[in-house]
Amino acid sequence: MANKITPRAQDYSLWYNDLVKEAGLAEHSSVKGCMVIKPYGFAIWEKMQAELDRRFKETGHQNAYFPLFIPKSFLAKEAAHVEGFAKECAVVTHYRLKNDGKGGIMVDPEAKLEEELIVRPTSETIIWNTYKNWIQSYRDLPLLINQWANVVRWEMRTRLFLRTTEFLWQEGHTAHATSGEAIAETRQMLDIYADFAENFMAMPVIKGAKTANERFAGAVDTLCIEAMMQDGKALQAGTSHFLGQNFAKAFDVKFSDKSGVLEYVWATSWGVSTRLIGALIMAHSDDEGLVLPPNLAPIQVVIVPIYKQTEELQQISDAAHTLMKELKAQGISVKYDDDDTKKPGWKFAESELKGIPLRIAIGPRDLENGTAEVVMRDTKSKQVISFNELHKEVPRLLKQIQEGIYLKALKKREENTYYPDSWEQFEEIMKSEGGFAHAHWDGTSETELKIKKLTKATIRCIPFDRKEEKGKCILTGKPSEGRVIFAKAY
Amino acid sequence: MANKITPRAQDYSLWYNDLVKEAGLAEHSSVKGCMVIKPYGFAIWEKMQAELDRRFKETGHQNAYFPLFIPKSFLAKEAAHVEGFAKECAVVTHYRLKNDGKGGIMVDPEAKLEEELIVRPTSETIIWNTYKNWIQSYRDLPLLINQWANVVRWEMRTRLFLRTTEFLWQEGHTAHATSGEAIAETRQMLDIYADFAENFMAMPVIKGAKTANERFAGAVDTLCIEAMMQDGKALQAGTSHFLGQNFAKAFDVKFSDKSGVLEYVWATSWGVSTRLIGALIMAHSDDEGLVLPPNLAPIQVVIVPIYKQTEELQQISDAAHTLMKELKAQGISVKYDDDDTKKPGWKFAESELKGIPLRIAIGPRDLENGTAEVVMRDTKSKQVISFNELHKEVPRLLKQIQEGIYLKALKKREENTYYPDSWEQFEEIMKSEGGFAHAHWDGTSETELKIKKLTKATIRCIPFDRKEEKGKCILTGKPSEGRVIFAKAY
Repeated sequence: MANKITPRAQDYSLWYNDLVKEAGLAEHSSVKGCMVIKPYGFAIWEKMQAELDRRFKETGHQNAYFPLFIPKSFLAKEAAHVEGFAKECAVVTHYRLKNDGKGGIMVDPEAKLEEELIVRPTSETIIWNTYKNWIQSYRDLPLLINQWANVVRWEMRTRLFLRTTEFLWQEGHTAHATSGEAIAETRQMLDIYADFAENFMAMPVIKGAKTANERFAGAVDTLCIEAMMQDGKALQAGTSHFLGQNFAKAFDVKFSDKSGVLEYVWATSWGVSTRLIGALIMAHSDDEGLVLPPNLAPIQVVIVPIYKQTEELQQISDAAHTLMKELKAQGISVKYDDDDTKKPGWKFAESELKGIPLRIAIGPRDLENGTAEVVMRDTKSKQVISFNELHKEVPRLLKQIQEGIYLKALKKREENTYYPDSWEQFEEIMKSEGGFAHAHWDGTSETELKIKKLTKATIRCIPFDRKEEKGKCILTGKPSEGRVIFAKAY
Repeated sequence: MANKITPRAQDYSLWYNDLVKEAGLAEHSSVKGCMVIKPYGFAIWEKMQAELDRRFKETGHQNAYFPLFIPKSFLAKEAAHVEGFAKECAVVTHYRLKNDGKGGIMVDPEAKLEEELIVRPTSETIIWNTYKNWIQSYRDLPLLINQWANVVRWEMRTRLFLRTTEFLWQEGHTAHATSGEAIAETRQMLDIYADFAENFMAMPVIKGAKTANERFAGAVDTLCIEAMMQDGKALQAGTSHFLGQNFAKAFDVKFSDKSGVLEYVWATSWGVSTRLIGALIMAHSDDEGLVLPPNLAPIQVVIVPIYKQTEELQQISDAAHTLMKELKAQGISVKYDDDDTKKPGWKFAESELKGIPLRIAIGPRDLENGTAEVVMRDTKSKQVISFNELHKEVPRLLKQIQEGIYLKALKKREENTYYPDSWEQFEEIMKSEGGFAHAHWDGTSETELKIKKLTKATIRCIPFDRKEEKGKCILTGKPSEGRVIFAKAY
């Protein structure tokens, strides 16, 4: 198998596209901006879903399903919300086709909707319109609901997984009796996302709050996790919004508290999407292909037999099946690649392309010695391990890879993190390879936008764990309350 | 808790609506024809999904995801297909909203799509357009793909779960090198559906083929499973289609066989939807509420403490927690309902409404005797069981309920199955309570439609296991090759 992937150093963007294509993760569809998620890409998404869903349920959330369509008037009810989404809405105007009399079909002009329907770009409006009927008393709160769904935001410039017109996601929508409870929920879900990113995706993230400019349309406060990709750019990997009473007011959702007083309900919403697959690729993969963290790899171990004669294959297969049984009993997913139309070299390259964390090769000499050759995908390091040890060594090595790629990504981030104190330093960073610049900012949207115009860098977040350190704004020299993180972003 | 459910005998249709509402399964949304699936309803769907998905993967299928939108021209490529779906298509014509200058929003006329997009009513066309690029050689076959998705078919008269404009489903789309392989796949998937219906939904089904009139638009042959509801009406619970080379020809999908000859690919598609939840309700439930088969019940056992003093509750809780631990270790889902704002009678009614298969009540006297009172939801039979036996008795009783409700539904079907040989008998059956009429038919669409017009009965299927028995058509007296099943249907 010839490597058809452009090296990262040559063209990072092309490398990403090649990798998504060659590893069979996704492709552009014939519908502008919409992707086809291929089986291998979807298998990674299913692993992500399973783990996130488990965590949502563990924290008391239930899944439900709300309509794909939102009446146009609903969207308009929350002013900031419609302002944010109006420009990217797919609109359903008719509900029937008919013969055009020329052998083709046309939209039936008589089947025009009285009110146009928007294909949901996010579901706050339709959900809060529903919650109005579900919430009367404090006894109905908190309401902790999540939805796994497709959403549509019309995009002019798309990128597989990272920015597509249709994408898959989960959106949590919760309702609370107090502001404090809603804020705690917002933070709890951000923490779940961060923990998932770090322990499952092996991707270090920085938790923080967005500035007003970058806030979700309709939110009082948007929290986020930000990760650094290998090219030094930032990627927002998940957001959790404190919505205050904005949607409750827009949809008139009140509850009577214990003393019978009517109050507006407090809300949160939070989501992660198939964008995470893009993040996963860009965080770890290399010029040979995907590097997948074992916790999310659809196949964790591949066993490749090396043989010339059929009798050899039989003996190797026996050994391989014994090993597979031992590993599967530990919940490890293993593929035995005994397809005899392909050569071992091809299979090795294929397993690298697909990011299978561990590759075990067994040949006749290995059989004689009672050993196998084990290669770790991330470091490509080889080791010879005795059969008797494999059932213990494989899980240990998987754990080592999981930790190793996390630490590698963390090191990369640290090496590309700067604390510039002058505009010259700041510009230098943004002109060169990129990275995270922790810099002082005067707190105004005006300055933030000016910096974006000058350098393409945006404020990724005001990190929760920033040091108390007053200073002067990198651009204006005005007083600053502390450093924020600037970066160019996906 | 007062029972707000209309009795079946009074109004079956109202009973269904009341039950869906009162048990918290689903409700109508503000978007005409679209439903909100509430958490309890969605939990049942998740159980169905998990089991079906397991079976699909076990038989070599992989999940993937294709776009929500289908270009209008794609739909038109297969003549029968567009004919079948054109009248129920939601059409996206614009991709942006804008301010209307009067404080509201309007569709931006400048953002009109060059080609309208259809919200998928089913995905054969977009998928076969994609398969064109995936299939070149016999080595690429079979291609065994499934998709879990939402689809939209514009409905004028809707019914929660049974017929809604948007619904959730899975759609399998497979590609094969030979007709025989595709036919075997079509049958294999029907068998999986039938097995799932009988062993998980506890719903007996009849497997058969549809007549030309009832075939999927674009299929060569449509296989189905048909179940009888408690009112004697039929409900189509799943279909599996042999598509021949129709879609391969429409989208020009060819493969080169082993000798290098180019051939059109053979196709199948198959699906079940959230309609199954409607079937589940109507197959088993009663005037008190849902009756759920233990294999699909989100909560299988509820434990209700009966107490007057707080010390009593403490002792009961200890016993309940011990039992819960034992049951959970066996994979049984248990809820301990110790909410002290509600009385035991309310909890009993609630557990009946929700269809929890087993209810265990523990009071102070039970504690003294070392026993608990166990009530089976389906038969409402009570029994006193010693604590020591519960960990064995609970799984046994769950199994008994699973089998019991299957047998009850089967008995009901048998009691309402007829073999009429005269038109008078046939009309009588269709006028009265309904049921399945196995009757001779002359094989023409004309007669089939005439019978539908006269009696509202349609041919549900030509059953696979019908006896060889020639006869005379129930309406026309013309020769018949065998009996087919007529019924009024949902």
